[in-house]
Amino acid sequence: MVTLEALWEAKNRLRGVARVTPLVAAHQLGEKVFIKAENLQMTGSFKLRGAYNKIVSLTEEEKEKGVIACSAGNHAQGVAYSATKNGIRSVICIPAGAPLSKVEATKKYGGEVVLVPGVYDDAYAKARQLQEEFGYTFLHPFDDEKVIAGQGTIGLEILEQLPEVEAVVVPIGGGGLISGVAAAVKMLKPGCKVYGVQAAGAPGMLESVRKGEVTELTSVSTIADGIAVKKPGVLTFEACMKYVDEIVTVSEDEIATAILALMETHKSVAEGAGATSVAAAMFGKVDVKNKNTVCVVSGGNIDVNILSRVITKGLTKTGRILEISTLVQDKPGQLLKLLELVSEAGVNIISINHERENERSQVGSCVVKMVLETRNTEHCEELERSLETHGYPVGR
Amino acid sequence: MVTLEALWEAKNRLRGVARVTPLVAAHQLGEKVFIKAENLQMTGSFKLRGAYNKIVSLTEEEKEKGVIACSAGNHAQGVAYSATKNGIRSVICIPAGAPLSKVEATKKYGGEVVLVPGVYDDAYAKARQLQEEFGYTFLHPFDDEKVIAGQGTIGLEILEQLPEVEAVVVPIGGGGLISGVAAAVKMLKPGCKVYGVQAAGAPGMLESVRKGEVTELTSVSTIADGIAVKKPGVLTFEACMKYVDEIVTVSEDEIATAILALMETHKSVAEGAGATSVAAAMFGKVDVKNKNTVCVVSGGNIDVNILSRVITKGLTKTGRILEISTLVQDKPGQLLKLLELVSEAGVNIISINHERENERSQVGSCVVKMVLETRNTEHCEELERSLETHGYPVGR
Repeated sequence: MVTLEALWEAKNRLRGVARVTPLVAAHQLGEKVFIKAENLQMTGSFKLRGAYNKIVSLTEEEKEKGVIACSAGNHAQGVAYSATKNGIRSVICIPAGAPLSKVEATKKYGGEVVLVPGVYDDAYAKARQLQEEFGYTFLHPFDDEKVIAGQGTIGLEILEQLPEVEAVVVPIGGGGLISGVAAAVKMLKPGCKVYGVQAAGAPGMLESVRKGEVTELTSVSTIADGIAVKKPGVLTFEACMKYVDEIVTVSEDEIATAILALMETHKSVAEGAGATSVAAAMFGKVDVKNKNTVCVVSGGNIDVNILSRVITKGLTKTGRILEISTLVQDKPGQLLKLLELVSEAGVNIISINHERENERSQVGSCVVKMVLETRNTEHCEELERSLETHGYPVGR
Repeated sequence: MVTLEALWEAKNRLRGVARVTPLVAAHQLGEKVFIKAENLQMTGSFKLRGAYNKIVSLTEEEKEKGVIACSAGNHAQGVAYSATKNGIRSVICIPAGAPLSKVEATKKYGGEVVLVPGVYDDAYAKARQLQEEFGYTFLHPFDDEKVIAGQGTIGLEILEQLPEVEAVVVPIGGGGLISGVAAAVKMLKPGCKVYGVQAAGAPGMLESVRKGEVTELTSVSTIADGIAVKKPGVLTFEACMKYVDEIVTVSEDEIATAILALMETHKSVAEGAGATSVAAAMFGKVDVKNKNTVCVVSGGNIDVNILSRVITKGLTKTGRILEISTLVQDKPGQLLKLLELVSEAGVNIISINHERENERSQVGSCVVKMVLETRNTEHCEELERSLETHGYPVGR
């Protein structure tokens, strides 16, 4: 179990390397809610802290041989950056399907990338094989005392930045982050609550805690790829059993809404995993009323392709994009009349599809599918009423 | 012309009201480049500083009668917030077509919103009419000594946060922001360069400086709505003539690329106007090599609809979205064969349109239009070669 001494040591090692990330007031979430912005950390996530603390703790012999890790995401960048900073060689096995942006970032930080055909498990096997072959030190992404102590420095910072903190809300994947943060918080301020948050599609730690033993899920599915972990660690499971007050889950829609809210309200880009803590506060999964609460936004490395999809989903959900179809007569000028109604309602057109041959259309009528830019749900309803009134049946 | 005393006074008035926004290293732009993150300011932009400084300077009588402003954006929010903080009534005229998110934000900060049919000029006329009728004080968005002094506190903060600053890069719309910042910087550190940046589609201040007199553009067009100003102010024109070393312009594509880079690299949401300073640095419009340079990111209030479009545009430009069309034979299984090639290349499908009746298709063949998710430009070319090799002619 991580000690206060180990946390303090990590804090000193990280001085001048890891940024002391800002604690930002997030009053829209609750009067006393704050965000710990680890998305603004070097390499875009908290992972640097643990990786760096681990790497500087290696023996000279280990350092000389270099380190190896397996990751498609934040751990890869954290390890590459930390190793390079210490003049150590790093080899990172990445599953071949990973977003190119993450591969490029890892290379930029000085990591030697080995693209492994297949999924995470294949990359992991390859890393273990290379470790065997070349004597590299394998760096586990979460189940390691030094890694946990490194992540725990976030807990120390929170206690310094907001001494009156009463609750912290922390995302859980493998459990490295919450193990460190919870240890720091509970050792120094036992009255402060520690909540863990998992994606409903990857509740490995929650299942483990419920069963009282480390449990492996058969599959995981979530846009929060940073916490899509099948099996928590042994050390991290023990820390959660000891220090964490409650673990809650958030749905995919809740995560997407939180990502959008962070962008619109806080001008901040968070990845799915990072937004889960905010989602938990937004959707009442944890009690933040009148309590000084810190939500740890653990990272911001979201692929913009995914971000774009999240935005579109959020816009549709809040009535700012409307997809509808209707029927028009197969005569000149009919589409024009429809578009006049759309224009009068102050609605922008994103796309239009006019199909004469469609299973819904009868001879003499055409189906028109429209994607529209609207102001809100009322605006959508207003347009739909106007179309219906003028003889255009509306389907969604 | 704004004095050091006025700047100092503004600084003291804003204490505890405006956030001292962080200065963030942006080494990806250049080794010594920093971002002054005014997008993290209360109300999402710098406008609060000037509005607040103006409002607290009003006489008791003026305060009692309330203030009026005309804006579709950041000025509206800055005025509403500042007035409410001082227990003063604020009326804001907003053109009816403005994004609902901005209207809602203004109301949330306590402003009484008057939606005026038409464009900015109509809203302006309405504001002047209401001013006449009810005796409100009209708050100009930029051409006002107190407003300029308020914005100038950003200059003081930059000098405190980076005493070794050698250049500042500042967006220009009406000129209020740069007038204050340039005055502060040039009075306290005359050797420091001050660069202004305008959207190429709205170069009002540049034209004015070139002609030596305040010049009104006949029209403006840019996604950077915060600086889409036809005519700069008289006071701001004078300040630019006196203090600004050079004014450069950036294109719409350059602005969009900068917005995307700020999101991906700095996890930061900037509006078009705010991103122009970063665009100027990214595209070599100003010399940032080996110079301690601060780019002022003036605001983050971008409508997510627009943000979504900017992302899509950026993705297409960098080869991460590919739109192509091809021809397949009008026989069973032909689309399947095509999709096998797409799948083999590791490409995701966003949308597919299969059209038998199309002007490009001849009898016996169909046009297939695809929007695809690719990794980069090479990946796009790879897929296109594969399709051509297998007899599918590719058009973009």
